[in-house]
Amino acid sequence: MAKTAGIIIIGNEVLSGKTQDTNSHYLSKELRTLGVDLRRVVVIPDEIELIGREVAAFSRDFDFVFTTGGVGPTHDDVTMAGVACGFGVKVVRHPDLERRLRERHGANINEARLRMAEVPEGAELIGDWSIYGPVPKMRNVYIFAGIPKVLQDRFSAIRELFREAPYYLKVIYSREGEGVVASILNDLLVRFPDLMLGSYPVIDNPDYRVKLTLESKDPGYLELAFEKLLSAMPAGSILRTEG
Amino acid sequence: MAKTAGIIIIGNEVLSGKTQDTNSHYLSKELRTLGVDLRRVVVIPDEIELIGREVAAFSRDFDFVFTTGGVGPTHDDVTMAGVACGFGVKVVRHPDLERRLRERHGANINEARLRMAEVPEGAELIGDWSIYGPVPKMRNVYIFAGIPKVLQDRFSAIRELFREAPYYLKVIYSREGEGVVASILNDLLVRFPDLMLGSYPVIDNPDYRVKLTLESKDPGYLELAFEKLLSAMPAGSILRTEG
Repeated sequence: MAKTAGIIIIGNEVLSGKTQDTNSHYLSKELRTLGVDLRRVVVIPDEIELIGREVAAFSRDFDFVFTTGGVGPTHDDVTMAGVACGFGVKVVRHPDLERRLRERHGANINEARLRMAEVPEGAELIGDWSIYGPVPKMRNVYIFAGIPKVLQDRFSAIRELFREAPYYLKVIYSREGEGVVASILNDLLVRFPDLMLGSYPVIDNPDYRVKLTLESKDPGYLELAFEKLLSAMPAGSILRTEG
Repeated sequence: MAKTAGIIIIGNEVLSGKTQDTNSHYLSKELRTLGVDLRRVVVIPDEIELIGREVAAFSRDFDFVFTTGGVGPTHDDVTMAGVACGFGVKVVRHPDLERRLRERHGANINEARLRMAEVPEGAELIGDWSIYGPVPKMRNVYIFAGIPKVLQDRFSAIRELFREAPYYLKVIYSREGEGVVASILNDLLVRFPDLMLGSYPVIDNPDYRVKLTLESKDPGYLELAFEKLLSAMPAGSILRTEG
């Protein structure tokens, strides 16, 4: 079984339509490349108890949990308090984070800036101090900022921690629509029940009508299923293949 | 209290990083414009029982629920079965949808195509038959296809059903960072506890460091809070305002 993951996007700005979340798509592509099975993404408001409930459930249900957003010095940055609430611990200042902040701000240090040193009690720091610094980790929950560039730099630095056996993918672009290929796909799944098989129609595209995706962690199994589907498709229906 | 909404994005293609979901951002902007409070977005796999659990919870927790994806004739289109499962009813063919499909396909009608007539028992059809046809609605759950153009055309046709009192928004772009403005924002919220106040830092931007958003359904209250914040910000820190 592949390791599983869940993503919790924290931010009123996403729910109110001001910002398009791009972090979950970035992480979903990375996790797929790493062979991790992303099972769930949720977008929730900046509310401590709600974050706590969500984090506790995700932490129980998935191997890896990633939160994004709500990390900063202002009133609406309540992710650390939310994660702490979810695990029934206090928020404390991490001594390494505090020392770095005091070095950086010198005489301009203040209570708001020191909030950036806060973590749930028991959290570790993962990764090094280059550029944006390490990622706070509480049990299996990795806590990321919401700014895409910061998230991407930090994730890139620690991504090998999550590497699993890869997924293999093959794609078929079909000129025939789903009304024709549906029964062929059903027959294929009887023969290959463990195949991950997707069927994605497009409209207003003169090129193809359906994109079929076949995936497996077993490249031999995938090859057999792919050959079977190629031979079952109607003559002339396959525009091109990938993978 | 504003009416609330939740969005359920159904699709393995989003979780596996093949497709970036844009439907939730489109709907989040539309709902904000309509004055509806979007409380939660979730992305889940094409699995009947999981869809059922999610739909039942959302239907109980929110006034309006929107699902996208998993509507079609192939094996991975299980949204109708999932919604039916969530409400403990069967999937049935809707007679109006079946008649239209038989008219459209004539002698080429088949079992796969007739799956497009399936709805949870008790579902109504909302909207008219222009272009992509009406939206199946089960209790407070509106069931949309995942193709963005189809979703947008169908939502546009019925959007006035959801109109509430509007949100009013004002924006301040600050040259000072969050470390400076945090305590000013805290003071503002003591005086205006019902204000929706957001603080969004940017990096690598020579123009401004933080975007502050102030919102309320009461324009007079918003104006008072806005004036208060303008007068509390440090001299020269405001680059520009909007709203």
